[in-house]
Amino acid sequence: MTALLLIIVGGLCAVAYGVVTIRDVMRRDAGTQRMQEIAGAIAEGAQAYLKRQYLTIGLVGILLFGLLAYFLGIKVAIGFLIGAVLSGAAGFIGMNVSVRANVRTAQAATQSLGGGLDVAFKSGAVTGMLVAGLALLGVAFYYLYLTRGAGLAPGSREVIDALVALGFGASLISIFARLGGGIFTKGADVGGDLVGKVEAGIPEDDPRNPATIADNVGDNVGDCAGMAADLFETYAVTVVATMVLAAIFFAGNAAVLETMMIYPLAIGAACIVTSIAGSYAVKLGANQSIMGALYKGLIAAGVLSVAAIAAVNFALFGGFSTTFTTNTGTTFSSGALFGCAVLGLVITALIVVITEYYTGTNFRPVKSIAESSVTGHGTNVIQGLAISLESTALPAIIIVAGIIATYALAGLFGIAIAVTAMLALAGFIVALDAFGPVTDNAGGIAEMSGLPSDVRKATDALDAVGNTTKAVTKGYAIGSAGLGALVLFAAYTSDLNYFIANASPTQYRFFQGVTVDFSLSNPYVVVGLLLGGLIPFLFAGMAMTAVGRAAGAVVEEVRRQFREKPGIMRGTDRPDYGRAVDMLTRAAIKEMIIPSLLPVLMPVVLFFVIQAIAGKGQAFATVGASLLGVILTGLYVAISMTSGGGAWDNAKKYIEDGHHGGKGSDAHKAAVTGDTVGDPYKDTAGPAVNPAIKITNIIALLLLAILAHA
Amino acid sequence: MTALLLIIVGGLCAVAYGVVTIRDVMRRDAGTQRMQEIAGAIAEGAQAYLKRQYLTIGLVGILLFGLLAYFLGIKVAIGFLIGAVLSGAAGFIGMNVSVRANVRTAQAATQSLGGGLDVAFKSGAVTGMLVAGLALLGVAFYYLYLTRGAGLAPGSREVIDALVALGFGASLISIFARLGGGIFTKGADVGGDLVGKVEAGIPEDDPRNPATIADNVGDNVGDCAGMAADLFETYAVTVVATMVLAAIFFAGNAAVLETMMIYPLAIGAACIVTSIAGSYAVKLGANQSIMGALYKGLIAAGVLSVAAIAAVNFALFGGFSTTFTTNTGTTFSSGALFGCAVLGLVITALIVVITEYYTGTNFRPVKSIAESSVTGHGTNVIQGLAISLESTALPAIIIVAGIIATYALAGLFGIAIAVTAMLALAGFIVALDAFGPVTDNAGGIAEMSGLPSDVRKATDALDAVGNTTKAVTKGYAIGSAGLGALVLFAAYTSDLNYFIANASPTQYRFFQGVTVDFSLSNPYVVVGLLLGGLIPFLFAGMAMTAVGRAAGAVVEEVRRQFREKPGIMRGTDRPDYGRAVDMLTRAAIKEMIIPSLLPVLMPVVLFFVIQAIAGKGQAFATVGASLLGVILTGLYVAISMTSGGGAWDNAKKYIEDGHHGGKGSDAHKAAVTGDTVGDPYKDTAGPAVNPAIKITNIIALLLLAILAHA
Repeated sequence: MTALLLIIVGGLCAVAYGVVTIRDVMRRDAGTQRMQEIAGAIAEGAQAYLKRQYLTIGLVGILLFGLLAYFLGIKVAIGFLIGAVLSGAAGFIGMNVSVRANVRTAQAATQSLGGGLDVAFKSGAVTGMLVAGLALLGVAFYYLYLTRGAGLAPGSREVIDALVALGFGASLISIFARLGGGIFTKGADVGGDLVGKVEAGIPEDDPRNPATIADNVGDNVGDCAGMAADLFETYAVTVVATMVLAAIFFAGNAAVLETMMIYPLAIGAACIVTSIAGSYAVKLGANQSIMGALYKGLIAAGVLSVAAIAAVNFALFGGFSTTFTTNTGTTFSSGALFGCAVLGLVITALIVVITEYYTGTNFRPVKSIAESSVTGHGTNVIQGLAISLESTALPAIIIVAGIIATYALAGLFGIAIAVTAMLALAGFIVALDAFGPVTDNAGGIAEMSGLPSDVRKATDALDAVGNTTKAVTKGYAIGSAGLGALVLFAAYTSDLNYFIANASPTQYRFFQGVTVDFSLSNPYVVVGLLLGGLIPFLFAGMAMTAVGRAAGAVVEEVRRQFREKPGIMRGTDRPDYGRAVDMLTRAAIKEMIIPSLLPVLMPVVLFFVIQAIAGKGQAFATVGASLLGVILTGLYVAISMTSGGGAWDNAKKYIEDGHHGGKGSDAHKAAVTGDTVGDPYKDTAGPAVNPAIKITNIIALLLLAILAHA
Repeated sequence: MTALLLIIVGGLCAVAYGVVTIRDVMRRDAGTQRMQEIAGAIAEGAQAYLKRQYLTIGLVGILLFGLLAYFLGIKVAIGFLIGAVLSGAAGFIGMNVSVRANVRTAQAATQSLGGGLDVAFKSGAVTGMLVAGLALLGVAFYYLYLTRGAGLAPGSREVIDALVALGFGASLISIFARLGGGIFTKGADVGGDLVGKVEAGIPEDDPRNPATIADNVGDNVGDCAGMAADLFETYAVTVVATMVLAAIFFAGNAAVLETMMIYPLAIGAACIVTSIAGSYAVKLGANQSIMGALYKGLIAAGVLSVAAIAAVNFALFGGFSTTFTTNTGTTFSSGALFGCAVLGLVITALIVVITEYYTGTNFRPVKSIAESSVTGHGTNVIQGLAISLESTALPAIIIVAGIIATYALAGLFGIAIAVTAMLALAGFIVALDAFGPVTDNAGGIAEMSGLPSDVRKATDALDAVGNTTKAVTKGYAIGSAGLGALVLFAAYTSDLNYFIANASPTQYRFFQGVTVDFSLSNPYVVVGLLLGGLIPFLFAGMAMTAVGRAAGAVVEEVRRQFREKPGIMRGTDRPDYGRAVDMLTRAAIKEMIIPSLLPVLMPVVLFFVIQAIAGKGQAFATVGASLLGVILTGLYVAISMTSGGGAWDNAKKYIEDGHHGGKGSDAHKAAVTGDTVGDPYKDTAGPAVNPAIKITNIIALLLLAILAHA
């Protein structure tokens, strides 16, 4: 009980940090009248989009709430509601800070690079801490209510189902928000660039471009709100899966069970505090290295986290030498769990470093894309694709090493703790990411309001680092999914085994007499792997098509405005920014529905089709294998897209910095093409694969729960 | 014995067809002096390249021959040699026909489209029939020698190892030839286009472009010789794997065993005859539909094959109602095996239709890419990538349906027979493919020798269909690998089980006391899946980089020639075609080594690393899972690349046919970019994934054999 209350205090620290920091950011100078006007238009568009998006998700959510309440009871439905509402809230608040911080960052950048970094990073940190804090509070509070308020046993099915449903609520928001936001932001970006930069020959963010406000709105709804929902979900699902595993592994051992279920929450709470501390270490040094400033914060947060998790170990286990044995016969010490948590932090650090290598402007990959731009559009794209494919190798090897090492230390539960520790730093990692759209917006506002060019230079420098940190978060989220693959799969198989073992004519009737063969030599396992493996490809293809279509619509709209109001290009007439925003809002909402349903429906349809063909046992095997299939190809598709896209973007920035002929050269034109291609890669399709993976897994767990009630 | 002799007669039919058809093609008019000069230069370059390539592979081959002879005995080493030599021969002869047929096709096209199709298809059919015929003869003869000449028992380890080594020989040639040829052809194509079309503004195949001969050489060494080696390997490996499975499933049941080992060979022999018959049905109808003419042949070959396989069933099993039971307890009838074979043919037909849909100019995918070209380079590439990702869905679903249906009919052996039947049509399918490079060359020769523009129009029409048929072969080869995944994995697990079961201090010592857990809940299985899944991504990335580098070198060389001999562009000076060919030869050979070694070394390194960490059992589990991992992501990577690349190429052709502004329009420029990107996608990285998958599997089998001898 004390531990749980302390955990809740940890979560509340994040909220407190948010309140204090929002105030701090809001106190900053908001710039000139013109700047505030532009920022106002962006904020208005972003709020309008988010309202419509939440409304649409709300409709789906009400339906699902009803279904869950009917099939699994009101506690489960309420869990779903909590996950969905808090995830939405994290995105909503983050975005609202972001649309106010952008103009203040632009204004601060008129003074110094360090000032701009400070405002942008702080506003990003608000989103970051809220993501981690609200996710932790949601899980901890509901767990507290279920076990203390409603008096359920900690490891009981009701508690597990309710927590899984909480993850489902978060996943649902996440997949829609990532995809809808991604389609909006890249439809605007690609469409606006095509018609502005390429056709009309005006620079990015030129106020004469009717799509320019939409582009900046997109940064907020996609890269900020969408990303926040994604990481909220990753955090919640990971913690919940670890708790479910604890409940299974220590069932019947009440004292240990409760401690083990609380351990991941405690790690989360401890690391929120260290993330906040780390955020204060982000300061621009004398060398003016932005990435260096962020690394300082990351290292501080990481080192403090090791100490904090050690403290958690002392508090919960009395140190490092207590040993535990799971139901499945694995024995490990509390020290081994600590080792797994530290490995989780190390993996996070390595993924950051590798992502920086693949997407930063100082290293071979980005330079090679820039160089290949000299020979044209085609070679730029070829080299970008080559880098994108190659960039999967090191993260995959690290994930594999992580699986092997943590499994050796403490079995499956060790892997789960490592993933939990990875995600425990989410507050800080999201802060790194969320500062990107703020600086991107700041650059736009600087351009549109005609601030001096060195302001734009400062915001561009921040933005280039933002491209890397954006890629980092995505690599981190998907990497945790890869490492967590076994945890999610273990949750599925353990649940399944539980239902089969306890099936009788009075309970879990559906599972009576079922045997499941998860061996690779079972053809249905291969069928499941293949069909699961298809989801990321098909899903990403649909997302890319959606962006292409949305961008095409933007091009038509902007062309129409240029044609009907020739004064726009002369600067005597104002473009109708609202129409572009409005049109994209409708397009993004419409386009997000079908692809989002793909990973949601897949496990259910697959189960019933295979059940009809080959019976229950094979249906369970197929669905189980499909979960690993989704993760397997999803990991590679997502990493290749997010790293590749980041590299393309920064290759363009590298050329704009004066290499290979600089802005306006043929190499630059080719690099703009690569950047355009990379846009939906890195900001729509790639990142949306992560929630697609999670939701497939969560749906499979819920399917088991529903069948158990049947 | 009679059956085996009849099978060999079937194989000899293919050789006879080759001899007759080569004579027929060579009798055709070889055109003007100028045309023959150009064709001579192409032939010379192609031979020079192939010589150097075979020399390099030869060095690796001698080393491997020695290793195999040392570890597994001379019979195994000779099997390897047979596979390698025959695979090389199929490619070599095919290419030599191709470089003579190109100019004759151009000449025939001056008369009529039908005439051009006739020459091109016939020369392609030579390659096709030789691929199937030599592969069949190699396996059948060596099997005959081993079981009759050397007196070994049909299902003995020595026979199995020798046959697997034959597959390995084919795989080795295949991976080098696909990759080396692919790098050459696309280096030339991309580089030549960039500097010619884009920089100098001269049309494709313009004789002033110093890379133009190299481009045409590339068609022959990559799309003809490389493809032939690939399909030879796919054919040989499939037949061998099916025979290995038969040997395992019917061990101890001598009468049935021999029949079952011969059954796949008999299907192969029967379908060679039907493929030859089908090739005579390829005739241009009144509607002038080239694809229609090819379909007529395919339908004829398919329908005849059903009858021929039925006849094989009568000859070997006395009809459809004989039942068999495998060692593992699966019972099926000869009728069920026939059903599986027919399903294999149906799957082939469906893959052809789907590939045509995704890459043909008449359907939504290609049209959507063409349309997206209107808004620029970026949207063209985005839409192309979207189509490329999407195009994986239907083939995957068909493969899954095939696995489920054939497994239901006759278990794993049923799947193997279905794949065998798919590959049995290889003669015809390769004919469809090999006609592509001939028509592509014919177009080049027409352009360079200044033939009237309607000749080029005819060869372009043939070439557009060639893009589709090229994609068909690749989809077909990789589809068979997907369906055959279980067969190859089953061969691995069955071998492993055999060694473990029969291990004692005197034989198979290495396997004593080993237990292997292939369940998905074993983390090492997930590790294997992940690392196997990485191979196609990393391999494809390396291949793309290699093409980019080779293309860059071509650009430099061409620019140098233009600079040093300004007369080239004025038409007063002749470019030095040989230098570009020479340079690319060196580049391609150098670049092919490292990526080719990746799938070769992966299983070996993986085995010993995991053995050191977690012991033999987990090492076997990891390697086994990695085989499925390679297939799983390889299937999607390869299909997406080959279909996507074909679609890009034809989207360009569609625009050149006068849509969206036609040649020279901005849309056309964007489409050229897409085509350039698609080039290494569809002709280097994508198709090379197929041999990479196979070689990983073969190496794993050989590794088991070597460990068994240790």
